[in-house]
Amino acid sequence: MLLPVKQKMVKMEEKASIGGEIALLRRIRARAGGLRTSALRLGIGDDCALLATRAGEELAVTTDLTIEGRHFRRDWHSPEQVGHRTLMRGLSDLAAMGARPLAAFLSLALPRELTISGEHGRSGQGSSWMDRFYEGFLALAEANRTPLGGGDLSEAPLAVADIVLVGSVPAGEALLRSGARVGDRICVTGRLGGGVAALYQLSERAAARPGSMPHVDAGLVERITPTPRLAQGRRLRQSGLATAAMDLSDGLSTDLARLCEESSVGAEIELDRLPVHPLASPEQALHGGDDYELLFTIGPKARLPRSIAGVALTQIGRIVAPPGGPSPVTLRHGSAVVPLTPQGWEHFS
Amino acid sequence: MLLPVKQKMVKMEEKASIGGEIALLRRIRARAGGLRTSALRLGIGDDCALLATRAGEELAVTTDLTIEGRHFRRDWHSPEQVGHRTLMRGLSDLAAMGARPLAAFLSLALPRELTISGEHGRSGQGSSWMDRFYEGFLALAEANRTPLGGGDLSEAPLAVADIVLVGSVPAGEALLRSGARVGDRICVTGRLGGGVAALYQLSERAAARPGSMPHVDAGLVERITPTPRLAQGRRLRQSGLATAAMDLSDGLSTDLARLCEESSVGAEIELDRLPVHPLASPEQALHGGDDYELLFTIGPKARLPRSIAGVALTQIGRIVAPPGGPSPVTLRHGSAVVPLTPQGWEHFS
Repeated sequence: MLLPVKQKMVKMEEKASIGGEIALLRRIRARAGGLRTSALRLGIGDDCALLATRAGEELAVTTDLTIEGRHFRRDWHSPEQVGHRTLMRGLSDLAAMGARPLAAFLSLALPRELTISGEHGRSGQGSSWMDRFYEGFLALAEANRTPLGGGDLSEAPLAVADIVLVGSVPAGEALLRSGARVGDRICVTGRLGGGVAALYQLSERAAARPGSMPHVDAGLVERITPTPRLAQGRRLRQSGLATAAMDLSDGLSTDLARLCEESSVGAEIELDRLPVHPLASPEQALHGGDDYELLFTIGPKARLPRSIAGVALTQIGRIVAPPGGPSPVTLRHGSAVVPLTPQGWEHFS
Repeated sequence: MLLPVKQKMVKMEEKASIGGEIALLRRIRARAGGLRTSALRLGIGDDCALLATRAGEELAVTTDLTIEGRHFRRDWHSPEQVGHRTLMRGLSDLAAMGARPLAAFLSLALPRELTISGEHGRSGQGSSWMDRFYEGFLALAEANRTPLGGGDLSEAPLAVADIVLVGSVPAGEALLRSGARVGDRICVTGRLGGGVAALYQLSERAAARPGSMPHVDAGLVERITPTPRLAQGRRLRQSGLATAAMDLSDGLSTDLARLCEESSVGAEIELDRLPVHPLASPEQALHGGDDYELLFTIGPKARLPRSIAGVALTQIGRIVAPPGGPSPVTLRHGSAVVPLTPQGWEHFS
C-alpha cells in the first residue's frame, strides 16, 4: 500500500508538484531560446548542454558569484541591472583572455517571492524580480551573441547568482596574467574609478530618499552596467600587442598585485598618468573596483595606439623587478615613491 | 594627497588587505594542483581556465547548486560529505550523457567562520569547515580524474556551492532525455530509495542526540555519498543500448516525468519490478531523490544485461503513448493502474 509521501519522507524542503520549477524553466527556456548559434548544439532541458568545438581552439572557462548584499543591493540596483552585471562579470573574464563567448550558464538561487509576478515590480508592468533580472541578463547576452545554455534554479533566503562563461580562443594565444616581464609598460582601457563612484552616488541618493529606489540618470546607469571589453580584448590578442592582461574587477591596487604575483614581477604606477573618471577621485581610480576595464602590459618597444575598438588606451606605469616589502606595487607621485597596498575588493581578509 | 580609502569610498563589504582571499586561494590551489591532466592546460590563477579540446568531440556542460538548509544541513552532514555531494551532483549529470569529465569548477560562498581553522573542526584535527569540504570534494575528484580548474570564492551568510562540470563526448553520441520512443523499456541502475531513507535515518539520529552530529556507519555514509555512475553511463553510450538517459537526482516520479516531457511520450512503471533499496520503502523508491542512479530506456528488442560495470540493471516499466491527464507517468500495481503524480524534489512550487 502506498502511504502518503509526506508522512514517510524527510526532505529539507517541502514536497512539490511538478508545476513550480518546471513552469519557471519553461518560461526561461522560451525567453532564452531566441538566440541560436552553431556552437550551442543542445541548450536548456537536458542533464548537460552540448557545445561544438573547433580544431585548433582552446576553451576558456570562468565562474563568478554575484551575491545580494555583497555585489549588489536590491534596494539600490534594479533587477535588470543585477542581471546585466551578473553576466558582465563573466564576459569581462573572457575579454581579459582575448576569448570569444560560446555560451553562458546561470545558477540562480532566489527567495520564492522574487519569482512571483506582481510583487517587486517597480516598473509598473507587474513582472517578477526574476523576470526582470532575465531581461537585463538576456539583453546583454544578445548584444554579445552569447546564448544561455543552461544552469540551475533553486530557492534560498537571499539572491545568489553564479555565472559560468565558456569561450574559445586559438590554442596557445590566450592573454595570461603571467606574461608580464620587467621593462614592459602597464596600460589600461577606458577610465578608472567610475564604477565605485557610481556606487557612492547610489548610496547617497538612497539615503536621501529612504524606502524608494535611488534615481539613476543615463550616466549613472552606464557606470553601473559597464560594457565588457570583449572587442578590445580580442584585438589586443590578435595584434600581438599585449604581453599579459586581466580585467579590473576588484580595483587596480588589488588586481595589479595579482598580475605581479602571477608574473613574478613588481610594478610602478604613476599617479599623474591615471585616466581618472571625471566623477571619481584618484583614490577611487586606484582602489575602486567595478570598472571592468582591461589591465594589460605591452613590450618596452611596442607602440601603444590611442584607442582600440573605440576605447581609449593609457599607459599608467611599468613593470619592474619585485621591490620586496609587503606589496609588489609602488606608486609614484612627483618625486615620491610609496608602496601601494592593495585596498580593493577582497573576500575573507 | 591620498586620503584613507575607507573614508572616501563606499563598498558593500569592508576593505581588505591582500592577505585573506589570496591566502585561501593559494591553499586551495596547492591542494588541488596534485591532479594534472592533458586536457586542463591552465588551471586556478588566471581570469579563465583553459581546456584543450579534441576533434570530433562535443563538450557537455552542467551546473548544480548545493545550498545549506536545502541540499544539506551542517548539523547533519560532515563537511567532507557536503564536498563529495557537491561534486557528485555534477559528475552524475555527465554520467547521464555518457560523457567523460575534463574539469570541474567550483563557486563557493561561505560564512567567514567556516574558513577559519580550529572552529567547526569536529574531527579533532582543527581543520576549517572549508578545508574539510575540499578534502571530500578533491577525494572524489581524484577518484574520477577530474581536476579542479577554477571557480570563485566569496563570503555569504550561508554556505552555497555551485558546481560546474565540463566533459567531452563524441559528437552526436551523447545520451539525451529526448530519445525515448513508444515501446521502449524503462530501466535503472542500482537500487532506489536508499538516498532519501538515509536522510530519514540522519534526521532520526540527529533528533535523538540534539547538539551533536548524528552517528553514521559505513552503510549510511555510502548512501549519503553515492558514487556517480560515470562508467555505467559511458558503457551505455558506447554499447548503443540506451535510447534516452538521465540521472535520478530528484526522485523517479519527478525525473521520469521530465524525461517523458522531453521525449513527448508517457511511461508506465510496474511497482513490483522496482529495485527497492532494502532499507527503503516502495514510496521512497518512487519519490525519493538523492539516489543518483541512472534512468534510461532501451529499444523494444534490445537485450538488457544483468549488470554493467559492476552495477545491477533492472527493467521497471515501458514507454507508452502520452496517457493524457495531469501526469505522463502511470503506476501499475497488480491489475490496478493509477496516475503517478510527481512528488520528488522540486523548487518554487
